[in-house]
Amino acid sequence: MKVDGPRLHRRLAELAAVGDTGDGGVCRLALTDDDRAGRDLLVTWMRELGLRVDVDVVGNITGTWPADSHEPPVLCGSHLDTVRTGGRFDGALGVVAGLEAIETVITAGVRLARPVAVAAFTDEEGARFPPDMLGSLVYVGGMASEEALAVTDRDGVVLGEELARIGYQGAVPCPRPPPAAYVELHVEQGPVLEAEGATIGVVTGVQGISWQELTLIGQSNHAGTTPMHLRHDAGAVAARIAVAVRELALAPDGPHVATVGRLDLHPDLVNVVPGRAVLTVDLRDGDEAVLAAAEARLAATCAELAAAEGVELRARSLARFAPAAFEPSMVALVEEVAVARGHRVLRLPSGAGHDAQMLARVCPAAMVFVPSERGISHNPAEHTAPEDVEAGADVLLDLLVRLAT
Amino acid sequence: MKVDGPRLHRRLAELAAVGDTGDGGVCRLALTDDDRAGRDLLVTWMRELGLRVDVDVVGNITGTWPADSHEPPVLCGSHLDTVRTGGRFDGALGVVAGLEAIETVITAGVRLARPVAVAAFTDEEGARFPPDMLGSLVYVGGMASEEALAVTDRDGVVLGEELARIGYQGAVPCPRPPPAAYVELHVEQGPVLEAEGATIGVVTGVQGISWQELTLIGQSNHAGTTPMHLRHDAGAVAARIAVAVRELALAPDGPHVATVGRLDLHPDLVNVVPGRAVLTVDLRDGDEAVLAAAEARLAATCAELAAAEGVELRARSLARFAPAAFEPSMVALVEEVAVARGHRVLRLPSGAGHDAQMLARVCPAAMVFVPSERGISHNPAEHTAPEDVEAGADVLLDLLVRLAT
Repeated sequence: MKVDGPRLHRRLAELAAVGDTGDGGVCRLALTDDDRAGRDLLVTWMRELGLRVDVDVVGNITGTWPADSHEPPVLCGSHLDTVRTGGRFDGALGVVAGLEAIETVITAGVRLARPVAVAAFTDEEGARFPPDMLGSLVYVGGMASEEALAVTDRDGVVLGEELARIGYQGAVPCPRPPPAAYVELHVEQGPVLEAEGATIGVVTGVQGISWQELTLIGQSNHAGTTPMHLRHDAGAVAARIAVAVRELALAPDGPHVATVGRLDLHPDLVNVVPGRAVLTVDLRDGDEAVLAAAEARLAATCAELAAAEGVELRARSLARFAPAAFEPSMVALVEEVAVARGHRVLRLPSGAGHDAQMLARVCPAAMVFVPSERGISHNPAEHTAPEDVEAGADVLLDLLVRLAT
Repeated sequence: MKVDGPRLHRRLAELAAVGDTGDGGVCRLALTDDDRAGRDLLVTWMRELGLRVDVDVVGNITGTWPADSHEPPVLCGSHLDTVRTGGRFDGALGVVAGLEAIETVITAGVRLARPVAVAAFTDEEGARFPPDMLGSLVYVGGMASEEALAVTDRDGVVLGEELARIGYQGAVPCPRPPPAAYVELHVEQGPVLEAEGATIGVVTGVQGISWQELTLIGQSNHAGTTPMHLRHDAGAVAARIAVAVRELALAPDGPHVATVGRLDLHPDLVNVVPGRAVLTVDLRDGDEAVLAAAEARLAATCAELAAAEGVELRARSLARFAPAAFEPSMVALVEEVAVARGHRVLRLPSGAGHDAQMLARVCPAAMVFVPSERGISHNPAEHTAPEDVEAGADVLLDLLVRLAT
């Protein structure tokens, strides 16, 4: 049994035309008119296929088959919203391939023990309304729906009002009953599968994330007249910290990735010793102990470097999520069906956050990755080869059937 | 004969109110509205005193006495522009004390053999338009005025257009005829005089300066999904270069001082690997061979670090001045008049660049330093004691009289 490749690609193209930015990219920021148009298209497809469409209070859409079943389904899905300069696969693939898998099951007349369903979660990107993964977080009860509906975008527009405006504030309450299992197909958004020549990524979990903002307060001074030994150079300490962050990730027991994405000096002039520096540190690892150890080691290093220069250090946490590991039996199942399809597979953690990590709080969950060309994502150039898209959809199909049988 | 201390302090305070940053500091970046207001104040004072005001094509202002004399004057002066977080003495002191010395000469009815003049040079700091000492460089013919007028700031604003906008593009051509001599009073901007208990610094010369802007072009990527070994992190290379710059100055044969004052990342987001970084390097030494060796060593290190990360490196010189030694007879004269006034004096080189080093190309030049409290400069906390300000102005007065007699 295989999905219908041409139908899958046609639907992906039809969806990519909604919010088309003209450069190959897509902009369907959450709860905009383009998000509504994308949702309308999905609901039309669901209805044509005879699924029961449910919309909950924060706008998560599910399509269930058989339509009259209210047993916990095997759920698949992802999201339809994008970042401002999004690609055509991030999110859309998981939803459209989920629909395709269900259509394949229906068309083939496969008898299943459990219902199957596909979900499109609201505001996964968090690009307009923070936090990211908002819809799935509310779905599993991690955030009250009232709180979510009161979230505002940077212009002060209220999420609940936008949801009502586009006609997607449904009556189904949250948290919703846990599904029997959840499976999400997604593009990797990184370069690992391509680099390793693997077609299917078996996602072991979602990395824990630690975001910190470090502020260094020294003494701004004349670059020509202040002898080196009398300086309190906040920029020099920031640079040493940035190097230490890089070295942290390169250490054998260090975190998987470590990034200094922001670094701002003040007054930021060629001939002035920087009196103030602000930098951010993004640490990620799949193992909470490794992540916590990295945080502790970095804190000690920063304190040492700041003290050596006579510079004050202030640290502030911007975000902190513990790693989420998918159930080993689910990971093994993804690997088994992908290998059975003859694909070269690779186990890897997800570096980015996904709806699957929220669903993993309430049911066995798994994720399937397909390669992103050159690792590019959140970019109009985001691309996944058609044969990889089909390979991923076939693995998703097999998982639905195995889990629902 | 002594200057009028209260008048001198009053004028310094009046000037410091122009661009007052509210924290004791001053911001009169070159060719801004505040620079114009400072220039207007100076021109008003010059006219009230009966000086002839000349403005040249790059906006350098001179006030000459007697107004009808076109002989080469004994020139004093400095600059009115400041860095973004400037103090109230850097530059302003040399201009206001010069005006004060001339007023004292006029009031006392001293007969001089030569005219005396005070100058305010355009864009000495180079904080907005590189290079620094631009105005005096053009004054002496070290840079064509057309080239100077075409310089742009970091927002692409053209120097000549800003000069015309604030009404200070004059008709006097550059290079201007060399003065008979040039003397500049300035705050030390370093901690040496205070540490040695000296009131008057007899400046022997000015360090050579090398300013470079380095641009690193890597690949911006997702901080969560891009493994460390596949990154082309422009920010990580910039940080390593900044650390290397610091280490360069700490080496026994390294330059006297080395500073990274600017460091900007793009897109400057917590969860994005920086795809682009721009940083500046400021190297200074009194020995041209040491300075050149430091430049060469740094270039090799930068190339190595960029190549190791797979990042493109572009280097651009923003300014390059060889060390300048003042004429021994002028240095001796400064020492003589300061000692005659009963001051404790100290011979020392200048760590900062000054307009005097440009004038030294075309005439005998000298500089007088007064102490900077705690060595602080380019900072709102910059301060020089009132009695030191007056001591410096009296030495300047004596130098003008001696050189013009």
